[in-house]
Amino acid sequence: MTDSLRVGVIGLGYWGPNLVRVLTEMDGADVVAVCDPRRERLEMISRRFPAARSYEKPQELLDDAIDAVVIATPISTHFELGLAALEAGKHVLIEKPLAASSIEAGSLISRAGELGLVLMPGHTFLYSPPVVCIHDLIAADELGDIYFISTSRVNLGLHQPDVSVVWDLAPHDFSILRYWLGETPKYVRALGRGCVIPTIPDVAFISLEFDSGPIAHAELSWLSPSKLRRTTIVGTRKMVVYDDTSNEPVRIFDAGVELPEPETFGQYKLTYRTGDVISPRVDVAEPLMVELADFRAAIVDGRTSKSSAFLGLEVVKMIEAVDESLATFGARVEVNGLPFSSRLDATAGSIQSRVDEREAAI
Amino acid sequence: MTDSLRVGVIGLGYWGPNLVRVLTEMDGADVVAVCDPRRERLEMISRRFPAARSYEKPQELLDDAIDAVVIATPISTHFELGLAALEAGKHVLIEKPLAASSIEAGSLISRAGELGLVLMPGHTFLYSPPVVCIHDLIAADELGDIYFISTSRVNLGLHQPDVSVVWDLAPHDFSILRYWLGETPKYVRALGRGCVIPTIPDVAFISLEFDSGPIAHAELSWLSPSKLRRTTIVGTRKMVVYDDTSNEPVRIFDAGVELPEPETFGQYKLTYRTGDVISPRVDVAEPLMVELADFRAAIVDGRTSKSSAFLGLEVVKMIEAVDESLATFGARVEVNGLPFSSRLDATAGSIQSRVDEREAAI
Amino acid sequence: MTDSLRVGVIGLGYWGPNLVRVLTEMDGADVVAVCDPRRERLEMISRRFPAARSYEKPQELLDDAIDAVVIATPISTHFELGLAALEAGKHVLIEKPLAASSIEAGSLISRAGELGLVLMPGHTFLYSPPVVCIHDLIAADELGDIYFISTSRVNLGLHQPDVSVVWDLAPHDFSILRYWLGETPKYVRALGRGCVIPTIPDVAFISLEFDSGPIAHAELSWLSPSKLRRTTIVGTRKMVVYDDTSNEPVRIFDAGVELPEPETFGQYKLTYRTGDVISPRVDVAEPLMVELADFRAAIVDGRTSKSSAFLGLEVVKMIEAVDESLATFGARVEVNGLPFSSRLDATAGSIQSRVDEREAAI
Amino acid sequence: MTDSLRVGVIGLGYWGPNLVRVLTEMDGADVVAVCDPRRERLEMISRRFPAARSYEKPQELLDDAIDAVVIATPISTHFELGLAALEAGKHVLIEKPLAASSIEAGSLISRAGELGLVLMPGHTFLYSPPVVCIHDLIAADELGDIYFISTSRVNLGLHQPDVSVVWDLAPHDFSILRYWLGETPKYVRALGRGCVIPTIPDVAFISLEFDSGPIAHAELSWLSPSKLRRTTIVGTRKMVVYDDTSNEPVRIFDAGVELPEPETFGQYKLTYRTGDVISPRVDVAEPLMVELADFRAAIVDGRTSKSSAFLGLEVVKMIEAVDESLATFGARVEVNGLPFSSRLDATAGSIQSRVDEREAAI
Repeated sequence: MTDSLRVGVIGLGYWGPNLVRVLTEMDGADVVAVCDPRRERLEMISRRFPAARSYEKPQELLDDAIDAVVIATPISTHFELGLAALEAGKHVLIEKPLAASSIEAGSLISRAGELGLVLMPGHTFLYSPPVVCIHDLIAADELGDIYFISTSRVNLGLHQPDVSVVWDLAPHDFSILRYWLGETPKYVRALGRGCVIPTIPDVAFISLEFDSGPIAHAELSWLSPSKLRRTTIVGTRKMVVYDDTSNEPVRIFDAGVELPEPETFGQYKLTYRTGDVISPRVDVAEPLMVELADFRAAIVDGRTSKSSAFLGLEVVKMIEAVDESLATFGARVEVNGLPFSSRLDATAGSIQSRVDEREAAI
Repeated sequence: MTDSLRVGVIGLGYWGPNLVRVLTEMDGADVVAVCDPRRERLEMISRRFPAARSYEKPQELLDDAIDAVVIATPISTHFELGLAALEAGKHVLIEKPLAASSIEAGSLISRAGELGLVLMPGHTFLYSPPVVCIHDLIAADELGDIYFISTSRVNLGLHQPDVSVVWDLAPHDFSILRYWLGETPKYVRALGRGCVIPTIPDVAFISLEFDSGPIAHAELSWLSPSKLRRTTIVGTRKMVVYDDTSNEPVRIFDAGVELPEPETFGQYKLTYRTGDVISPRVDVAEPLMVELADFRAAIVDGRTSKSSAFLGLEVVKMIEAVDESLATFGARVEVNGLPFSSRLDATAGSIQSRVDEREAAI
Repeated sequence: MTDSLRVGVIGLGYWGPNLVRVLTEMDGADVVAVCDPRRERLEMISRRFPAARSYEKPQELLDDAIDAVVIATPISTHFELGLAALEAGKHVLIEKPLAASSIEAGSLISRAGELGLVLMPGHTFLYSPPVVCIHDLIAADELGDIYFISTSRVNLGLHQPDVSVVWDLAPHDFSILRYWLGETPKYVRALGRGCVIPTIPDVAFISLEFDSGPIAHAELSWLSPSKLRRTTIVGTRKMVVYDDTSNEPVRIFDAGVELPEPETFGQYKLTYRTGDVISPRVDVAEPLMVELADFRAAIVDGRTSKSSAFLGLEVVKMIEAVDESLATFGARVEVNGLPFSSRLDATAGSIQSRVDEREAAI
Repeated sequence: MTDSLRVGVIGLGYWGPNLVRVLTEMDGADVVAVCDPRRERLEMISRRFPAARSYEKPQELLDDAIDAVVIATPISTHFELGLAALEAGKHVLIEKPLAASSIEAGSLISRAGELGLVLMPGHTFLYSPPVVCIHDLIAADELGDIYFISTSRVNLGLHQPDVSVVWDLAPHDFSILRYWLGETPKYVRALGRGCVIPTIPDVAFISLEFDSGPIAHAELSWLSPSKLRRTTIVGTRKMVVYDDTSNEPVRIFDAGVELPEPETFGQYKLTYRTGDVISPRVDVAEPLMVELADFRAAIVDGRTSKSSAFLGLEVVKMIEAVDESLATFGARVEVNGLPFSSRLDATAGSIQSRVDEREAAI
């Protein structure tokens, strides 16, 4: 590998140009090739980034002299393109979700492990400073035990042509929930509706139950009058509101309820506590820049990226379970996730050891 | 009956004094008697309203010369007190929910019908100008068909000693939903948790499915950092946000998605439309005043109150179904509600005809 | 004086009934008489507070057995009624502003001093918990030196029949500014306009200069689309936003600009600092209750009320200076206020000593 | 002139790169040359826009084959660079404010007129869709006569090294006010303070009086805890709030006060009217793109740009008057502006005719 990572980007739709731009701006990486079947997209990128070679076919890009591939194509193509890139000996970052099924995701993980290559899903929110801030508050036990988390991610937004609102938006919330709680939910349950196109849900209400106690709910919609990105985290000690659209994205409420004498439940001597509200200063780092630096570091240093393939697999399992619940009128569906592991996978472990662990589990 | 309705109020806790105050201020009614087992509550009211006679026992009040009784006591006492009042020949208004079970509520309705007395639950929100405004928008087909309704009613609130957050808060949202859609949901499903007191749910996420198409979701909580009263109604033509805490409680978004050529689903030529946002002027009438005037009119004119006993019964059935779903880990529970009836019951019908109809149905 | 202060209230318009209600609810005071020339106002109060005797003429009330008088009448009557009450030997609280001119206010102060009676203006905001919170932050030097204060107090509001928006609203902001800064401004300058009634300004923009450094600006209007009560206080260390309409009325911004090397002005190596934002928990005490308790304490204990007659006089001087500036197309007008006195008068001093000091100054 | 306008950009600081980007993206113009004394700025632009030739000295750029020059340098250099560009026969767009004094601005206008070249200041806000929307509401008499306008433009912002907050921010508000009202104010008055650097005002409160009736106030500051961009426009019929940071930037309040019988001023039978609030849909065009297209059209079609040199001159006169008021402790200073001309200059007139008119006036 040369000092500067030679990266190829496949897919120049909505997100791909951002990847090209940030890879170009960051230290230690160069975009040496881009690929898209649409000539006008290639030309648009060529004008702005003339140093990158253009290809219409992915295999041509894979045959070029590159170290790593970033894939930003429709979900249905993630597996095929990801596998081809791995087989060509490239490290791979795939936009979220990692693949269109857990089988596909698991196969990619296995193959990456066999070949000793980095495989990473692009769960950008795990690198967002407010999300990291709340993770650290939870990890430091500032909030106490988590009672519940409620999130709304809605706007009058871009209906996707090939996937439901769940496949489009849930990867954000599910990856954040798993990162914060270090745990895949045990059960999910969902109600949705395809309002505009009956076969494609564009609104969904999803309940999640975690084995260690917390419950969560996610409201997802492409069909709402105004943009909402609001998450409430309620713990035994404090409560937090996270609003990605605010310039105070994290607000910590020193508020709660206390049961001074738990033995006298029948009498309910509850005390309400409302103290200060604090909006901590949050860094303004661009999450995508941090994510791509983590991808580079995973390749160079051989460590697991925070947005790990295993987390990506868990997210896909959660979405699959939601799909099953939607198909069975909201039945409670078990997610066959990895067990609660002291938030281990978010913080440590080499690629190989995690692959070993994972293969044993499959 | 005298010209001015002689009213007795039973229960002087949180809400009772409001009822006394508004009944005193309104034309055509007088509070002639109040009842509460707590002497200090009676004395507090006597100081402010010396004309009202005080009783510690409900039967004493019922023996007084009154035309109507308003009951604002804990839910578990609604049936017994309501029945006693009816048997004493009094018209009865019972605070929401009408009773602690649909059997109790149905019995009260039957008995009121037999005796030709008014029985009315206190679903005050049905008299709230913003709620009426949205009802009228839906009835006038301004919003088109309703795709879905999502509502959050949360705050750091008063845990009730005897009931869950569902029995406490859902009567508001369920009565509003039924009023707006003119239809009892076919199915409900709920996930909740008793965070502070494990046996008493203080947070709940409730999904509702209506036979005619719409879905709805209600988030209810006594355990949230800040008060939210936000409801989004999404229709085929327009969308509305209702926020009871705002001085622009109703906001109409002329926004939506259009499928110009429905035959080409596969190509998804969706068009997004975002036009003006309008906050219509909404009256500032006090809902409780309008409700109590409706109670008086139902007695004097013999017509069904907008907050009808039947609507009250449907609300209780919805809550019962939610309880069953909570007890079965979120199973989809059918609500044995009245069928969709062209929004008939919200607008017309005499007491007796509805009683007849209802009795035939039971 | 009896244990419980016997109070008479003159003026039952908009504010008077609030005074009656709070005096009735508080310990240590009774409303024994009320006075208003309008029979219907007297009857309305009698129904709600039957223990208070009703009078149509102020002198009748002053002849009754009372210890203190609260005057809530139009500004033009403050002096005559206040003087009559003092001459009748009553302690007096007069709604803000204390009088219609500084000569009137000074005369009332002199006479109260001679007679050893309490004279207090009703600057309620000095008892508002957020205002007190910010006062204490300034006093504790948490904000550093104050650079400037900017305040907007506007709404679509009640045009007063007899006074301008300045006499109506400025007493709030001017009393607050004087309380916070402990200093009467040296100069004021104002631009206003009588939009609806040309002779009565209903919008005004007022600049204030304080000798010790700070500048301030107040925007006052009865003619604005939405209610604003927003004050920004910018200090060398921190900044505060005070919004009386918010449920987080005080927000402290740990933000500022630093000049690391003041000698190198020419190079402007400014550093911007933005830290946490804190909304401190603020008490929910009703300001009017605290104000009236302070009035009672001033009578019983012989100490100066926080809303002192001297502060009330300074506020009247400020308003007079604004009127003069308005009449001279915005000329810079000197306020002949008391000198900067280390915030002394807000915290200490007996009535008599201040009267002495004041009389020496007049 | 070739079909595509050949443009050179001088000054690659904060704003220059935006000009280069937008000129590159728009039809009918090419950036053929850029100039900045700082090599690293030139290199940064060369990487992104390799087709543009780089120069360190302005005269080199002026000697190149270009049709027009865009100047985005410190204010103190506007006159010298603008004049050199005109003498070199180039059309000129100068970032706001047009020049550092009205004499300089007037000289540039005269010279441009003599040479038949376009001279245009970059008052970008005149091309902002919300500002245009409000202009059109006023022009269509939707708001009635304007009573007053109040604006706040504050944030914790970038202190400029060479100019006060007035020269930095007032060009925005002054150009908008003149565009909306079609009139230069007759008088201004200002209070300011150099908080951080005593010689450079970083907060200012500015009053403006217009001959035809309206008054206005502008609060400008680089030293405020949170960003505010809020303007209130109050007319006899309606009121508007313009908030550039909101996704509903224009809100129209159908609210006001009515004097049904003007002859009875003494009795004040005022009626308050509060109707709907409407947030009209506003285009999302990038103002800078529209501005530069207007510059091109002025060159090609020989018509006056909306952001005209005359408007730019009037803005400079207003700022000069503010500076004089600041230096004289807030004296009321007359602005020797063009007379009220039925909003003529915002809508019509060829360059030459306006130059003639102007020269006659000088």
